[in-house]
Parts: sequence; C-alpha cells; structure tokens
Amino acid sequence: MSTSKTVRKVEVLSPVPADIDIANSVEPFHISEIAKDLNLSPKYYDLYGKYKAKVLLSVLDELEGSGDGYYVVVGGITPTPLGEGKSTTTVGLCQALGAFLDKKVVTCLRQPSQGPTFGIKGGAAGGGYSQVIPMDEFNLHLTGDIHAITAANNLLAAAIDTRIFHESTQSDKALLNRLCPPNKEGKRNFNDIMFRRLKKLGISKTKPEELTPQEVKKFARLDIDPTSITWRRVMDVNDRFLRKIAIGQGPEEKGMVRETGFDISVASEIMAVLALTTSLADMRERLGKMVIGNSKAGDPVTADDLGVGGALTVLMKDAINPTLMQTLEGTPVLVHAGPFANIAHGNSSIVADKIAMKLAGPGGFVVTEAGFGSDIGTEKFMNIKCRYSSLTPQCAVIVATIRALKMHGGGPEVTAGKPLDRAYTTENVSLVEAGCVNLARHISNTKAYGVNVVVAINMFATDSEAELNAVRNAALAAGAYDAVVCTHHAHGGKGAVDLGIAVQKACENVTQPLKFLYPLDISIKEKIEAIARSYGASGVEYSEQRLDHLFMSNQAEKQIEMYSRQGFSGLPICMAKTQYSFSHNAAEKGAPTGFSLPIRDVRASIGAGFIYPLVGTMSTMPGLPTRPCFYDIDLDTATGKVIGLS
Amino acid sequence: MSTSKTVRKVEVLSPVPADIDIANSVEPFHISEIAKDLNLSPKYYDLYGKYKAKVLLSVLDELEGSGDGYYVVVGGITPTPLGEGKSTTTVGLCQALGAFLDKKVVTCLRQPSQGPTFGIKGGAAGGGYSQVIPMDEFNLHLTGDIHAITAANNLLAAAIDTRIFHESTQSDKALLNRLCPPNKEGKRNFNDIMFRRLKKLGISKTKPEELTPQEVKKFARLDIDPTSITWRRVMDVNDRFLRKIAIGQGPEEKGMVRETGFDISVASEIMAVLALTTSLADMRERLGKMVIGNSKAGDPVTADDLGVGGALTVLMKDAINPTLMQTLEGTPVLVHAGPFANIAHGNSSIVADKIAMKLAGPGGFVVTEAGFGSDIGTEKFMNIKCRYSSLTPQCAVIVATIRALKMHGGGPEVTAGKPLDRAYTTENVSLVEAGCVNLARHISNTKAYGVNVVVAINMFATDSEAELNAVRNAALAAGAYDAVVCTHHAHGGKGAVDLGIAVQKACENVTQPLKFLYPLDISIKEKIEAIARSYGASGVEYSEQRLDHLFMSNQAEKQIEMYSRQGFSGLPICMAKTQYSFSHNAAEKGAPTGFSLPIRDVRASIGAGFIYPLVGTMSTMPGLPTRPCFYDIDLDTATGKVIGLS
Repeated sequence: MSTSKTVRKVEVLSPVPADIDIANSVEPFHISEIAKDLNLSPKYYDLYGKYKAKVLLSVLDELEGSGDGYYVVVGGITPTPLGEGKSTTTVGLCQALGAFLDKKVVTCLRQPSQGPTFGIKGGAAGGGYSQVIPMDEFNLHLTGDIHAITAANNLLAAAIDTRIFHESTQSDKALLNRLCPPNKEGKRNFNDIMFRRLKKLGISKTKPEELTPQEVKKFARLDIDPTSITWRRVMDVNDRFLRKIAIGQGPEEKGMVRETGFDISVASEIMAVLALTTSLADMRERLGKMVIGNSKAGDPVTADDLGVGGALTVLMKDAINPTLMQTLEGTPVLVHAGPFANIAHGNSSIVADKIAMKLAGPGGFVVTEAGFGSDIGTEKFMNIKCRYSSLTPQCAVIVATIRALKMHGGGPEVTAGKPLDRAYTTENVSLVEAGCVNLARHISNTKAYGVNVVVAINMFATDSEAELNAVRNAALAAGAYDAVVCTHHAHGGKGAVDLGIAVQKACENVTQPLKFLYPLDISIKEKIEAIARSYGASGVEYSEQRLDHLFMSNQAEKQIEMYSRQGFSGLPICMAKTQYSFSHNAAEKGAPTGFSLPIRDVRASIGAGFIYPLVGTMSTMPGLPTRPCFYDIDLDTATGKVIGLS
Repeated sequence: MSTSKTVRKVEVLSPVPADIDIANSVEPFHISEIAKDLNLSPKYYDLYGKYKAKVLLSVLDELEGSGDGYYVVVGGITPTPLGEGKSTTTVGLCQALGAFLDKKVVTCLRQPSQGPTFGIKGGAAGGGYSQVIPMDEFNLHLTGDIHAITAANNLLAAAIDTRIFHESTQSDKALLNRLCPPNKEGKRNFNDIMFRRLKKLGISKTKPEELTPQEVKKFARLDIDPTSITWRRVMDVNDRFLRKIAIGQGPEEKGMVRETGFDISVASEIMAVLALTTSLADMRERLGKMVIGNSKAGDPVTADDLGVGGALTVLMKDAINPTLMQTLEGTPVLVHAGPFANIAHGNSSIVADKIAMKLAGPGGFVVTEAGFGSDIGTEKFMNIKCRYSSLTPQCAVIVATIRALKMHGGGPEVTAGKPLDRAYTTENVSLVEAGCVNLARHISNTKAYGVNVVVAINMFATDSEAELNAVRNAALAAGAYDAVVCTHHAHGGKGAVDLGIAVQKACENVTQPLKFLYPLDISIKEKIEAIARSYGASGVEYSEQRLDHLFMSNQAEKQIEMYSRQGFSGLPICMAKTQYSFSHNAAEKGAPTGFSLPIRDVRASIGAGFIYPLVGTMSTMPGLPTRPCFYDIDLDTATGKVIGLS
C-alpha cells in the first residue's frame, strides 16, 4: 500500500453491490486532507462543503518553476451503446498508481451533465470499486460550473434577441445616445468594451460626438442577420420539447418571432471555452470573441460587439477553478469541464491538467480522459487540446472490452436496456479475433502521435482466458506497448496494478516527440481530409442538403468559404461524428475503409477555437424515456442521503 | 462599539463612493469568524469559499430548547420606482444593533435574482455604508440555490411534456409495463413514489398485475389536459423573447406543438416552497404536491404523479440551507430564498428566520425584510409566512422617504432613469404632509397585526428638518410607536443607532398577541375581500376577461370554484398586485378608497401553500434595455476582482 495518508483500504464484496451503496459505504476524507497530501496549501483552494474544493488558478503561478508529472490520456475502442468503462478504468488506474504503487497521481475527469442523470444514463462517476465520491455531489450541481455556463450562455442569447429588437425601433443616433448615455457632467463616453468594437471597426476616435453618421451606423447598429444566428439557448435538463421552438410570440415583442432551440448546457461553446482556456485573461478574450452569427453584410458578430464579454467572464470567474474530489480509495481527482464529445472536443480542462501536472510533479502521474475512441476522442485531445495547452502526453491507454470487440467482429446488435445476446456471454474467440481490427486501428492511429499505447482490457466475469489472450496478442501485433487485463470494477485499484505498472513503463520509455495529425496552416478542407483519412475514408463529400433538423443551415462548402473569408481557417478542426463507428455510419463496425465521408454542414466555435464540420446529425438535446431514472431518486429526509441514484 | 470580535470600524467618506468601491475597500472577515461570534459550531455549517457558508438545518435540532430573539420585520410605504431603501435600512439597522448597541443580531435577507443584475436594476445588497459583502458574491450565483431551483423547475417541465408525448403513443398496458419494468427476477413492482399516486387514487393493491384494466388506466395515464398546464419553464436571465414561445416544433416531437413560456427563476413555485418550508421532510411533501395542471377529468396533477417529487427534493437538498454572509461592519447575515413579491409572497425563508431566532437568542434581534409595502409585503409576511412558521414578530419597521411621501402628496411622476423633478429636491412641507396619508394607512394596517410600528425615515441630503418633522408627527399621530430619522446609507450603523434604540424599546413593550387579517376557514372569496378592504377597496370584481398575455387563463370565478372543489380553499391568499399603489392602479397614489378591486384570474401554488389572485397583469420575465448594466461589468483579470457592478 501507498505511504500517502489519505489512502483508504476498501473491503471488496462479491457480487459487486450497487454503485451508490459502494459510494455510501465509506466516509470520504475531508477534502483538506486530500489537499494536504498533494502539498496544496489552503491559500490555493476554497472549500465547497466538506468533500469538494475549488483549486485556485493562482497555484499555477506558485508552482511555475516546478516540474511536470507524466501525462497519460485514456481513450477507448469504438464503444457499444453500453459504454466500455473508460471512466471506471481511468479511476481504477489512478487508484492502482496512488493506493497500491505509491505514486503521486491526479485523475482529471470531466464534470458530467446533470440532465442525463435523471434520464436514462444515470451518473458518471465511474463504477463498482472504481468511483469518485461522494457520487451524488459529483453528479449533481458539483460546484456550480455548469450552472454558470447556463447563465452565461443564456445571457448572451438574451442580449442577441433584445439587441435586434431595440435596433429595429431606433435610429442610429438614438441607438448611439442610448449606448453612450450622458454622465453626471453631461458628457457622453465610450466605455472599455465599446473600444474593443471601435478597434475592430478600425475607428480610432475616442468620443461619441466625433463619429461621422456612417461611423455611428457602423458602431451602434450590429445589424444582425437573424437567419445567420448560430447561438442557441441551453439548459442542463433533458427537455426534447425545446429542441426546436419559436420565441418572441408575446404581444410586447411585436411579431419578431424567430425559430431557435435549446441544447443541453454541456453543448454550449462556453463549456468548450472553459475546457480550452489557459488563464482568466485568456478566458476573457475567448468569451469576447465568440461569434453568434453574422451581420447582414456577412461580418461575424461577437459577444464583445454585444457588450457582454466582460459580464460573461464575471459569471465564469469561479467556474475556471477546477474542483478537487477523491476516489473511493482516497486518491485526488480534479473534476473540470465536460464539453460534448461530438460537436465539441470532449476533453476535461486544460487548466485542471496543468495544475495536476504540477501537483503530481516529476515521477508522478496525471491521468486524463478523452471522449470516446481514438477517432474523435484522442484525435481531438491531441490536435486541439494539446495544441492549445502545449502539454505532451507520454502514454495513451485504450480501453477495450471483449463485448465491444465481439460486436466489431460481427456480433449481433447491442442495445441499451435490452438483454445481451448469448454471443456476448459465452466464449467465442474467433468473433473476438475478428473484432480486433477495430482495436488495431485505434492503436495505430494513436501511436502515430508519438505516444506509447497501453491497451487496458476491462474484464467482465463472462470473459474467457482464450478471449483475453486473443486481444492481448492482437494488441501487441498492432504495435501496442503493452496490453493488460484489469478488474478494477470488481477489485478497485488492486485490479489495475498490472495496468499501472505497464503505464509507468510506457511513460518512462517514450522515444518520439509529439506529432500532430495535421498542421494548422493548411486549408480547412485539407484538414478535414487529413482527419477523414485517419478514419479510413477514401475521400470527403461536401453535402448540398440543408439541415433543418438542428437549426437552419447553409451547405458545407459555403460555410467553409465564409469562415475562410472571415479569417478563421487557421483553427483546428473538431469533427462532429458518431462515436459508434470510424465512419459516419454508426452501423459500420470494425475498421471500415474506402467510404466517402459526407460533411453536411460546417460550424465554428471561434471563442473556443475550432471549426466543427457536421458529419451527419448530432442530437444536442437528449430526451426523457417513459420511465426516467428520476422515478427512483429520492432523499432520505431523516439522514439527508440521496437514494436511488445510479 | 460592540464587544463582538467581528465588528469592523469602517471609515466613512463624503460624498459616499460607489457601492462596489465601498464593498471592495474592506477585507471581509473569514466567514468562520462570523460563525464563531454567533457560537455556531463548524459542524453546523459548510464553507463555500472564504466569505460564505451554508448553515445546516441540523442546527435547529441542536438549539431546539433554547430561546428566541426578538423578531423584527422591515416593510415600507408604497414606493417610487426608485425604491426607498428597504434593504439598505434593514442592513443599517442591524449594523446599529450589532456594531454600536452591542446586541446579538442576525439580518435575514432575500437572495436577489441574478438576471436583473445584468439588466437595469443592478445588485441588491443594500447600498452606501449599509451593505452585505462581498457584494459580487451576494449578487451572482451565491451558493447556487437559484440555479438549483432553475434545474428542478425545468426538470418538472420536461417531465410534463415528455409524459404527454409518451402517453399519446402508448396503450395503457404498455405504459404500465414501461413504468414498472421487470427486475432481475422478472417481477414487476411499484416503487415508493408510485405508491403515493396509488394512495391518492384510492387503490390499495401492491402489485402491477393485480390492477384491473380500469385501474391500470387510472394509474398509468395521467391524461394531462395541455390547456390546463400552469407550470412554466424558468431561467435566471432577463430574456423577454421567452415570455411566450411555442415548443415541440422539431420533427421528432410529431407536431405536439404547445404554447408556453419562461418566467424568471425567482417566480418559480419552487422558490416559494423554499421560502415557506420548515424542514427537509416538509420540503419533500410540498415539492411532491405541487400542481402542474389538471387531468382532462379536472383533477389536479402533481409532481409526485409524474414521479419526480423525490428527484426535485434531491436537487434542492443543499438549497434548503441558508447562506451566512456579513454586513460591511461585520454583523452576520443569513441570505435565503427570494420569491417574487407579487405572484408569490416576497419574503426570505422561514428556515433562515428560525435559525436566526435561535442564534440571536433571548435579548437578541432578528431583522427580516418583507417585500414592498404593508399592502402586499407585511400582509403576506403576517398571513402567509408567520402562519406557516408560527413565529411572532414584536416590531414592524416601515421605511419612508421624503421623496416617496411627496409623490403620494401629489408630486410629479417619478421615473427610473430620468432626473428627479425639483419638487423632490427642494423643501415642500405641505406636499410631504399631504403624502403622509399613505404612511398612515401602512401604519394602521400593520398595527392591526398586534405589533409595534417604528417608522424609519431614510434621510436624503436634500431633506429639510421641517419635512422630517412633518413625517415624524404624522407617524406618531397615526399610531406609530416611534418615528426616527436615519442616515445609515451615508454613515453606516452609526446613522441608525436611534432607530436601533427605538426598535429595541418597541420589541420590549409589545402588549398584544399576533392577530391575522383573516381566518383560513372562510371561503376564498371572503379572504380576498378581507384583503381588498385592507387596501381601501369597497368591493371586489371578478373579471370575465381572458389573460392571453401571460398564459392561457380561465376567468377568476371559474378558477375559484375549481380550487374549492379540489379541496384547496383552506389555503391563505397571496395577492398579485402592483406595489405602486394600495389599489390595482399604479397611478393612484396616497391612500385611495372606494374603488372596486378587479380580480382578473386566480392561480394557485399548492406546494408552496397559497392561492394567488391576479389583480391586473404581472410581468414575470423582465427584459433588457438597449444598454444593459452588463456593458460596464468586467473582470480585472490581473486581480480577479469584479468591476462595474452596481
């Protein structure tokens, strides 16, 4: 066992009890104990109750000179709809490193969306004996970051519609006068945020009265084209009836009805900004330059043009601090940001990883999770997140299950909520072997970045020795540094000790530098095509069809031209593609090749810093089933404990 | 000065600097120091950063046997649109009692809505040298209670529309099977929340398979009448374009378009529940019995019928704990709940007041603020809040300004954002004297509850001695226990010492028991009429017209009949009336009489526990002006300090 003071020895039961029962069976350490074990001084964190603390960004200044730990990213193979235990493996690996191998280790996880907790999915704190606790606090509210995102996103949305409304009824002069009201001395002035817009417009005058009528128009009238607005409202609730709505139907809004919709909060660009920002000053700039649509002349309109970039930053000022929690076995966890893994890049935050790298220190480990497989998870981790963070991973873990490999080998369809076919619960080595083409491509794609790849075979009770060996052999043949069977769900960190040792060796034996899949200075199309090739596609098709499903849309080519003209072609690309196949077609399992990847539309998150082509239709607002999870969730009002959360 | 360890001597400048500059000029005490001074053990609070703590409800069990402090409610006269300094006076009075008169004192304030902070109004932490600090934390996010309300309110909204959707496509049997899926042993069971519905339906069977087909239909099919739905979505943003919207326009929602809208979050019934609940168990019951509309047969449909009452309680479990903060001079403040003062009862929470009463203890003071004047503020405090809390106030403070009294005496219209007419800034004793009819009615209405009334004349620099004397004389003539000029905005607690002494005497010399305005066991109409008479009305008119403005509505009489038939006639009444007049007409200043009060519609918050007649149209979603406050708000990214917040 580790020498760390906060390691908790957890007695393991078989069969494994329900997640909430395991979580409730231990008394968490006061979070100040976890901080102390990390040598994190109380001046660098704020307590949020007994088991959560926000780590202040200022700790980065304090630790600036100190060395980094090893950086490990956890991805997976192409998953079944049931998930292959990527979060659970991330937690299990860290419990092994911290509680059994005596390493300093920090786990960096995404904050889950609260909406799905009450829908079908349940919580996202890991599972079994590899969990983050308290799991109810992890899954609900946490320290309010997603609520802050919701508030900021919707303030910007309100600012857009209200501005269009006010511009429609006022002359240029009246607008200017309202925007620059006289102060106590009767003088009109621009304020700081207005100077940002003036600068963008190339106007160097400093007093409102100096503007020519044409400059007044340019400055005061944003002239937003309502059909170009890409900014939607958000809510952290699975509310399918808000996917497409008509707003402004009240009599006071004078017939300015507009069609729009709500996404789930984690799909907000502000979430992506939070995940990719590196400092308060950087966040201020990113939030201000978020583009909400175009003017009628085709110029991008930003949050700062609307005067609201500063207020958004104020709303997000505490959200930028990651939340410290603990695993079941007492190792530290930083929970921070949780952007959508398809329309955004699906990784936890840069600032959490940076803080973790310093807290882990030389010889220590930071284990961070990427969304889904190497196609959209690790790819975005490398080409977007690492590009912005300048952090370099040494090792990538790919989580595989016999179940998913059998599916890729041609097994029957796997559907959430339905019993698994017998093929998945009885030995079938050839099905597994056939499915390893999927694993092999994830390995070679990931290796191409210059990291060592360790395959974590997340073992289920029904997996046979021969099946597990088949995966191990296939992984090594495909170039994995190692491939290890692990049982952390059933046994906690102890079940991932071999994985921990393999990861440590992989980190210590990197021979190559980090290599991106594409340079930034090629065209948007060339970048899309580079990524498409990594999926196995032979080419890319830019679709003509309209996407009336999500919101009004222009065709892909037109959007690419527009973003290039607007000066955004140097951004990295974030493909919005299904996670259930390397291709755009979720039904194509294994390692498809030779297909043409259709790009239906292209959008951009300019503040976050990426262009996102839509490969098919992505739902950005889940729904509730007939019997949502919430039927089982209640509070034991005598003890204050949450019951029925899964 | 007080012997309390946390009293802060603040040096007062003249002219009074901006609120945020005053707030930023002092370093707040660590909130644990404030707690220590209250003898509040760390086990009874959770820190939220350095300057906020959530006080846990469990402290009430600990302090059950100990005595209460004096209970003082602060209301006002009928205000101008500029506000007459009710919050500022509440804070100033407490600073006087705590920092200058050496009393134990706890201030109980409402949490302000975040939306208006970015709109026209700015913050709500008091002002000048009578403020709650840190004012940015007070005004933004606080400890997440309003965000929790938003999440809970909208989860219920999503549950309603999704349930209607699923019921529309499934047979009774299929619904039952989905609601009661087989467990691992293949058995179908009801869960706890389903037994609540079965009990309500009078079905005592315990297994799904025992239900007759008719019972299956009754149980599984809520059969919600979409036109009867009163539950709206909420957002803590001033987003006028959401006042009236059409939802469900996406193709997957199969044409089930419905008209509805968003209110600002503080208008949610869940906020009113939070303010009126007395314990976790009580909150669970209130949230479960909230009525969202009727079945097509006319029966009320509740959150528990939808299976979501427990989940709502889980979302609200931390929100039930009040937030401890401090005044500028270091006295303790409990911030908790902030229900709308017109469609709801506009008072801070019962649990905060109850905790405060124990922490202040015998001889100590709890000062709590009521929304607006005695017509809708103190009236609701007495007849709704005190009825549910069983707490008894000894003293009511009525805040008056020369400015507002002049308006009531016939002065020109006062409009926010426009300069004040000369009448308000130069001496005019007769205008003041004429306006005192308004003050006199507030005094006599308030005295009728059996409390001693102290008038606090919130002095402005332009007020003359003769004007102030006129108010003092009129107040005493109308039966006030005392009337005191105070200058706490300019001087902090020192400026309210006389007020503090008057309040202390008033509390020590109560001679009457608390007397409600009406008993609960009379009819809804009789209760409405009793309240209308207290406004000066000669009668009540139940309007026939439809309110298509807010949401679809039935006429008042029909609603009263319906609520009576549904068994809700025993609830207290919460009038939704303008705060700008005793009557329904905001332009009628002074003390109008002889009018007939029109009731346009009647609604109910069954979970919170009141019926609310609509006297005219109440806007429940504010808008943003052309130049919202957010233009000035930014973060100094070097220091992390908020700038431009007013």
